[in-house]
Amino acid sequence: MMSAEPEYVGTAVRIGVVTVSDRAFRGIYADQGGPGIEAALTRIMASPWFAVRRLAPDERPAIEAALCELADVDACPLIATTGGTGPSPRDVTPEATEAVCDRVLPGFGELMRAVSLHAVPMAILSRQLAGAIGAYVLLLAAALLRVFGNLAGVGALVVLMVAALCWVAAFLLILAVYAPMLLGPRADGKPG
Amino acid sequence: MMSAEPEYVGTAVRIGVVTVSDRAFRGIYADQGGPGIEAALTRIMASPWFAVRRLAPDERPAIEAALCELADVDACPLIATTGGTGPSPRDVTPEATEAVCDRVLPGFGELMRAVSLHAVPMAILSRQLAGAIGAYVLLLAAALLRVFGNLAGVGALVVLMVAALCWVAAFLLILAVYAPMLLGPRADGKPG
Amino acid sequence: MMSAEPEYVGTAVRIGVVTVSDRAFRGIYADQGGPGIEAALTRIMASPWFAVRRLAPDERPAIEAALCELADVDACPLIATTGGTGPSPRDVTPEATEAVCDRVLPGFGELMRAVSLHAVPMAILSRQLAGAIGAYVLLLAAALLRVFGNLAGVGALVVLMVAALCWVAAFLLILAVYAPMLLGPRADGKPG
Repeated sequence: MMSAEPEYVGTAVRIGVVTVSDRAFRGIYADQGGPGIEAALTRIMASPWFAVRRLAPDERPAIEAALCELADVDACPLIATTGGTGPSPRDVTPEATEAVCDRVLPGFGELMRAVSLHAVPMAILSRQLAGAIGAYVLLLAAALLRVFGNLAGVGALVVLMVAALCWVAAFLLILAVYAPMLLGPRADGKPG
Repeated sequence: MMSAEPEYVGTAVRIGVVTVSDRAFRGIYADQGGPGIEAALTRIMASPWFAVRRLAPDERPAIEAALCELADVDACPLIATTGGTGPSPRDVTPEATEAVCDRVLPGFGELMRAVSLHAVPMAILSRQLAGAIGAYVLLLAAALLRVFGNLAGVGALVVLMVAALCWVAAFLLILAVYAPMLLGPRADGKPG
Repeated sequence: MMSAEPEYVGTAVRIGVVTVSDRAFRGIYADQGGPGIEAALTRIMASPWFAVRRLAPDERPAIEAALCELADVDACPLIATTGGTGPSPRDVTPEATEAVCDRVLPGFGELMRAVSLHAVPMAILSRQLAGAIGAYVLLLAAALLRVFGNLAGVGALVVLMVAALCWVAAFLLILAVYAPMLLGPRADGKPG
């Protein structure tokens, strides 16, 4: 299930992209979440990168195995997941993410929900979160697609991740997406 | 302790309303929180509903028993509590709620605190939260009265809960109350 | 390591100020966080107070011992820490704080992160939190300095803590700092 590795693999940032979906996993429909994250990353990444893709069913062991492999074997400093963060009993991505994390970083979940609420009222149900494995891997369990999809004028944002591949740098990628939406003026009801 | 069931019980939504208060339980003063929630629900509910009331002291076993009974026996898809979410040692409603939930939905607590802060500075002390039991019951441990009480022009909001009685629908009720307050313009210092 | 007690010790509020830093503890550089908190307190406190200072390395046992001593022996109704709330493996102040707390008050962490994000994007990584020991002690594990440092026109705020030394009063101090920043108009991009 290794992704095809492009030529610049030696210097490019590896970003894990995990789609969690029973139906996508069984082939009932095509994965839209993963490509959605990659399209968003393409817009905001300034340095070379490539996606290491995984597709998992809504089962904790499968999700945890995919996350650990992306962190330990594929050495991805950033892993983003899509799917499975809702409130239904089959949604277990947050539980799987928390299980493999050394620590949870609550600010990401709070910010993602606060921003998502402007676009999608259902975001109040989301259990998005982020956490860290050691000092090097940042995990994001988030319905990122939905928010990225609502993002228009983000072109000016630039993220430099060439030098330091640790996740402390990687988080800037996410912050670059969310912070302007949250911190800008919103008297017009639209994200800044 | 069953509430009187009105005539439309067959099609109406059952909503559990739990007042948690030592003093109200002992009859030292009349329960104001429960009627406050019901008055607010009356303003915002579009479909037929009726309250299934409970009164509990500030003791975890009593609160947990009331919540479980409302979920399992009375089949309420939404249960709202008032009282016991503060920081003092006697306040144990969040602990009781979390104990009977299958999962916590952090967005509700975050949103309730963020909105309440505009009206009541003491809200920073609140440990409000919401959670789900299975796929059908949403629990809210919140000093709802205070926020509902500050709510004026909410008349235009309509909630339809006739068809699907699961809590995924029920949450809209709460969101209808909070979202406009949080997301609207607030340059005037008032909720939108 | 007891601090010098000024003359008004009989009536003054004791506030624990804990700097958590390996390097400050080893004397590699001077503690700046602790004096920063004290300078901020000096600006916002209306009643007599004095700081009971502690300096701890980034080790859970040392931090927990300092917090317990400030609560139990020094009888501080408010303890503020600085340092060690970041995401790196050496940052353990939140874990130590939660371990000695009877309950966490999530509103403080949410508010501190939301406010700090306006000044410092890295605040999204912060694991700031507050909790209570019994009914009397409020613990804040926060990079307070950074926020206090960004605080200009807070002079009008007054905190009265003479009568009741319980932490329910003490929290007002913190709220007085944060609430205006969060709740004020922010169309200009600056805290209110």
